[in-house]
Amino acid sequence: MRYDLYYWPTIQGRGEFVRLALEEAGADYVDVARRNKAGVSTMMKMMQARTGTPSFAPPFLKSGSQVIGQTAAILLFLGSRHGLAPKSEAGRLWVHQLQLTIADFVQEVHDTHHPIGTSLYYEDQKGAAKQRAAEFRKERVPKYCGYFERLIAGSGGTFVTGRKLTYADLSLFQIVEGLRYAFPKHMKKFEREIPSLVALHDRVEARPNIAAYLASDRRIPFNEDGIFRHYKALDK
Amino acid sequence: MRYDLYYWPTIQGRGEFVRLALEEAGADYVDVARRNKAGVSTMMKMMQARTGTPSFAPPFLKSGSQVIGQTAAILLFLGSRHGLAPKSEAGRLWVHQLQLTIADFVQEVHDTHHPIGTSLYYEDQKGAAKQRAAEFRKERVPKYCGYFERLIAGSGGTFVTGRKLTYADLSLFQIVEGLRYAFPKHMKKFEREIPSLVALHDRVEARPNIAAYLASDRRIPFNEDGIFRHYKALDK
Repeated sequence: MRYDLYYWPTIQGRGEFVRLALEEAGADYVDVARRNKAGVSTMMKMMQARTGTPSFAPPFLKSGSQVIGQTAAILLFLGSRHGLAPKSEAGRLWVHQLQLTIADFVQEVHDTHHPIGTSLYYEDQKGAAKQRAAEFRKERVPKYCGYFERLIAGSGGTFVTGRKLTYADLSLFQIVEGLRYAFPKHMKKFEREIPSLVALHDRVEARPNIAAYLASDRRIPFNEDGIFRHYKALDK
Repeated sequence: MRYDLYYWPTIQGRGEFVRLALEEAGADYVDVARRNKAGVSTMMKMMQARTGTPSFAPPFLKSGSQVIGQTAAILLFLGSRHGLAPKSEAGRLWVHQLQLTIADFVQEVHDTHHPIGTSLYYEDQKGAAKQRAAEFRKERVPKYCGYFERLIAGSGGTFVTGRKLTYADLSLFQIVEGLRYAFPKHMKKFEREIPSLVALHDRVEARPNIAAYLASDRRIPFNEDGIFRHYKALDK
């Protein structure tokens, strides 16, 4: 089964959580808008469809005739097909719940540089961004990371749900990567408080398929158009 | 099967999307923190658990020994059990995808009054809130509502996925209710652009179980501690 992934071709963004799952699974996929120039315009047209299952926003995944949007829903779909989620319904729902909490965290990361709105540039909301980022570093990073730290420490294994890797672990790897990129000063101090999460990050990073992906040009470098952005004024 | 719903007892908030599904289904449930005074402290303790499936935040639902958090995941769970979602896997995933987009919208509604952060009061971020709310009314309300309007108009039925009611329709009812409460002036002008969504709202409102719920004291009135808040400065 070949998948077509539709996402912005120049950023990691939310698409990266899907890319990591596809790469770990060794799945056959095309990152459409990276492969061909017309990809973005095809993607926009698909989102304008009046019937079928058009997505509100990228990423979305085409699998045969099925089109699935929303990062967490895509991972729910891929998880069962590629052994990246437990087999039991309750187990699958738990991993999905974790992914939804990661999605909330990602939204809050985005809002550190866009607290007023997505239709304005960062440069037009710098003051509010500085305030929001301060609150984010002080309150939200410890709250979210502390939650996952506690779960990993109590999981009875080295992954967030126990001894088996799931797509939520891949996403937690990306969270640590992204926070390190966006808030290097803060993370340097903060990481000692989340040893299990950092260990999980390292374990994911060392997996053969992930290591190969990270070393390839399929992995787009972090940049200031994505979700995790490095602005000196927002780090401390 | 009796369910225990854990959520803040004084607001509709995100819990309301679950309450509406339970009420439409005629499910046997206890709104724990509304039923007894110790409910909130039990809820907080459950969230601090080191094992099991503790939620990052309310709402969460207890069904037998299973505890499920994240509004959209709870609805995914309830949807298949109570005929509030299609039977096919693809259909269920589509309704879930819509619910996740509704969840994104709800987060943006929240951020109109809390653009800088949840640890501060609205009164401490009024200036930023005014800017964010203006952007929200101008850009985000038409974008989200327009998406759902288009889907309902193209669904081949009177609900968002067609001829059968799903939990996503119940949530869309709540979206219209909430926007009317929070932004009455804006909605008065805007509603003519979303006739199918308004008609869907009215259809849900008239369903016997929903009508009975709305008339009961189980329905908490909107207020300025919830997600949809009415602040004159944010409406226009």
